[in-house]
Amino acid sequence: MAPENIFSGVAAQSETELVTALLAMPGIRIEKIVSTGQASPPGFWYDQAWAEWVLLLSGSADLRFADDQTPTVMKPGDYVLIAAHRRHRVEWTSPDGPTVWLAIHCGIPQTETNQM
Amino acid sequence: MAPENIFSGVAAQSETELVTALLAMPGIRIEKIVSTGQASPPGFWYDQAWAEWVLLLSGSADLRFADDQTPTVMKPGDYVLIAAHRRHRVEWTSPDGPTVWLAIHCGIPQTETNQM
Repeated sequence: MAPENIFSGVAAQSETELVTALLAMPGIRIEKIVSTGQASPPGFWYDQAWAEWVLLLSGSADLRFADDQTPTVMKPGDYVLIAAHRRHRVEWTSPDGPTVWLAIHCGIPQTETNQM
Repeated sequence: MAPENIFSGVAAQSETELVTALLAMPGIRIEKIVSTGQASPPGFWYDQAWAEWVLLLSGSADLRFADDQTPTVMKPGDYVLIAAHRRHRVEWTSPDGPTVWLAIHCGIPQTETNQM
């Protein structure tokens, strides 16, 4: 059986951030997120009812938390646990090539639709 | 806040496979597994009551399934879902440097101890 590769089909540029569900099981969703320079809208903060563990696989990004003035600049191999209801945003992603994230949503309600 | 890096502290060689829990929540465990040439014992098959999603981050490995004669040779970025009770083993990992895996155990009973 040939495995799939997380970097296959990753476009160098895209108008929007691309989110692909790699696995969805009760309480867990594993996503591949490809950013090509996108950031969260100005003033927007994610506020999720569940925890999210993110691992940056390629590129770079700046993750901000509402309760922390310090930028969390992420490079390949860096990972962070975003606790439930910890408000966060993506300040920037690298404009020079695709930033590929692995996001693991933990304890997500099954009724939730596909949101980061 | 400085993120942690999954490749930090990875030894080039080790006597045994090293498993580190990066996150443990009800029903989910995320592990970093570092192999430096280790394989499953001859004739041994893992048979888990829960699903495991694995992503190879560096190195290379050959994952075998009892129901599939074809080797599943994995290179960086390759991922596979191992269904619950699908018997599998690691036939070999690269002898040339560390093979780093991310393993996400899904639906794992909370009473289980730390096993791949």
